[in-house]
Amino acid sequence: MLNFTVEEYKERLEKTKKSMSEKGIDVLIVQDPANMNYLTGFDGWSFYVHQGVIVFIDQEQPIWFGRGQDANAARLTTWLDEENIRDYTDDYVQNPVKHPYEFVADIIKEKGYDRKTIATEMDAYYFTAKCQERLEASLPNAKFKDGNLIVNWVKIIKSDTEIEYMRRAGKIVERAMQVAYDSIDIGVRQCDAAANVFHALISGTEEYGGDYPAIIPLMPAGVRTSTPHLSWTDEPYKDGDTVILELAGNYKRYHCPLARTLILGNAPQKVKDLAAVVAEGIDAALDIIKPGVTCEEVERAWAKSIEKSGFIKDSRIGYSMGLNYPPDWGEHTASLRPGDKTVLQPNMTFHMIPGIWLEDCGVDISQSFRVTETGVELFTTYPRKLLVK
Amino acid sequence: MLNFTVEEYKERLEKTKKSMSEKGIDVLIVQDPANMNYLTGFDGWSFYVHQGVIVFIDQEQPIWFGRGQDANAARLTTWLDEENIRDYTDDYVQNPVKHPYEFVADIIKEKGYDRKTIATEMDAYYFTAKCQERLEASLPNAKFKDGNLIVNWVKIIKSDTEIEYMRRAGKIVERAMQVAYDSIDIGVRQCDAAANVFHALISGTEEYGGDYPAIIPLMPAGVRTSTPHLSWTDEPYKDGDTVILELAGNYKRYHCPLARTLILGNAPQKVKDLAAVVAEGIDAALDIIKPGVTCEEVERAWAKSIEKSGFIKDSRIGYSMGLNYPPDWGEHTASLRPGDKTVLQPNMTFHMIPGIWLEDCGVDISQSFRVTETGVELFTTYPRKLLVK
Repeated sequence: MLNFTVEEYKERLEKTKKSMSEKGIDVLIVQDPANMNYLTGFDGWSFYVHQGVIVFIDQEQPIWFGRGQDANAARLTTWLDEENIRDYTDDYVQNPVKHPYEFVADIIKEKGYDRKTIATEMDAYYFTAKCQERLEASLPNAKFKDGNLIVNWVKIIKSDTEIEYMRRAGKIVERAMQVAYDSIDIGVRQCDAAANVFHALISGTEEYGGDYPAIIPLMPAGVRTSTPHLSWTDEPYKDGDTVILELAGNYKRYHCPLARTLILGNAPQKVKDLAAVVAEGIDAALDIIKPGVTCEEVERAWAKSIEKSGFIKDSRIGYSMGLNYPPDWGEHTASLRPGDKTVLQPNMTFHMIPGIWLEDCGVDISQSFRVTETGVELFTTYPRKLLVK
Repeated sequence: MLNFTVEEYKERLEKTKKSMSEKGIDVLIVQDPANMNYLTGFDGWSFYVHQGVIVFIDQEQPIWFGRGQDANAARLTTWLDEENIRDYTDDYVQNPVKHPYEFVADIIKEKGYDRKTIATEMDAYYFTAKCQERLEASLPNAKFKDGNLIVNWVKIIKSDTEIEYMRRAGKIVERAMQVAYDSIDIGVRQCDAAANVFHALISGTEEYGGDYPAIIPLMPAGVRTSTPHLSWTDEPYKDGDTVILELAGNYKRYHCPLARTLILGNAPQKVKDLAAVVAEGIDAALDIIKPGVTCEEVERAWAKSIEKSGFIKDSRIGYSMGLNYPPDWGEHTASLRPGDKTVLQPNMTFHMIPGIWLEDCGVDISQSFRVTETGVELFTTYPRKLLVK
């Protein structure tokens, strides 16, 4: 069931160890579900209990740890040997008197690393304050470091297979956007349109199916478009509604996000103006992208383009993305924003989404792309303009 | 847009403050998205950035904090006054040089609570080790306590409106289960059946629409049923496949989960035997439920029932559930397992799901219910038996 060759997983592990070595880290505990998947292939909706992958600087394979009933998922989806799949009993689950990180500490002691330098992903989803507290209390002789984003920075440059998966996700999301356009209409319940969009994202294409996106389809309408993270209700769409659509196709956990804004009937002139400004700004930003350019330079091209319009955009206009699990498809590494000096390299992948939200409405138009040797490859060709119906 | 009366939110807040007071806590920082919603109504898929609700023991309203672009979601979905909606600038987002909990510390200082006792939800999703570290570093004169599950224990007993929402979720999930049964067949791609199930969950009924469940439909087939948290692939179902279906309907963030096991064609006798044992065990456990009985007594009734079969179940058979966000619809309070002495009370709500997974297959049959004054109210009436097709 592996989605990549064992060699590719081992290369990722080697790059991770190299980064650990540079930072003086002997043991890295990886709880971010996307990072677990990246290093081992582990897949499954079991990240609601504590689980992870322990990378030892001088061991050939990491150790997967998790709940007993999820060990078979590790056997089915990872390249790890049986001896490196370690599961805890069910009384560790959500139990005030026992904590899974006491079990993790026992593994580290058993392997003889309890006086070494141990790093955790301190700001990763699902790695809670309690995990750190239990770990430190159980390993009093260890030294602790912050290993946040170590794997994220390794995975910022994609392999050709990863890129191919993202292209497939792009095909899926283009279909879903078309289904959204076809489904949304005056009098249609928002939940019924959202249901059709979900159907398209999961069913995929005739050649391959889709997987669940790390964020649900965000489909606010009317006044709810004044903020980007609300979604549908069961009210019907009304004449004059603006509908923002931020969707992502997913293939084998790799994303391609796509956002558009749809107007039903007559929408305010300011929404039309805003959309034109955003589309032109994206053109300007995409134009300058190639290896060697920095993230902040991309943002500057956008900012310069919209300057003349009088609209203001005070948040980042995009971010690195790819492999992920809920609650976010972003990778938390490079952002297209002032101050981010990350230098673009081939096979970095971004979602450029310079949404602007005013007091009572908003406009989102986005473009997912790969940095190539000479410029950009667009993952979708859906027209970058306001949709009107 | 409030889903409950302001009075109901205020009652919940008072109960939370009472619990804080008993524990000697002056300030409670609530980052769990379900707890934020419970106290204020806040809704939105913005829990992928740090956000929360700060409850002060002697202030009338909590303070919502979050990202600038999400402040309008707080204005639209909560009962809080404008002065209690506090948003941070976008450069706090996923930026190694600034952290949102420094912003939180500033609010606590401004309000004059920086020498008081502050509690955090130390093992809640999204409250990371880094949040705690930044908070403690920024408030050197405060005393810290673990405030984990304080709100969860308040919400374990539902109001009548909450129960009504869960009944609606029950209607939605029964429809979705029927759609699953109708869609799954030999030669059908798993992703196409999953797409139909998603459609049913979101579209809801003619009277009301559905919201996204906190866990995707879990629909493993074949050997993937040997572990509970895998889902569909894009392979077609095969003759003889066992398919496990764990779905949840959702209405206004309130869940009703429902699990069944479906056999296509001829399945091994051991699966049929297992299903009969599980169904009988659930009957036995439901039979003894009423106020005053403890959670571990319910588990014991199950264990006694299956004892004679020779099968073993070494994980909990159910848990309190209701209002939630990804990644889990469980509330992390009472579990139906040995050692849990929680006493059942009217309007507690549980998902009883005594799944058994063998080496190469598994069986799940479940029942969501409410404890009534005299026994149980079942949220679904879908037959508790093996589905065969």
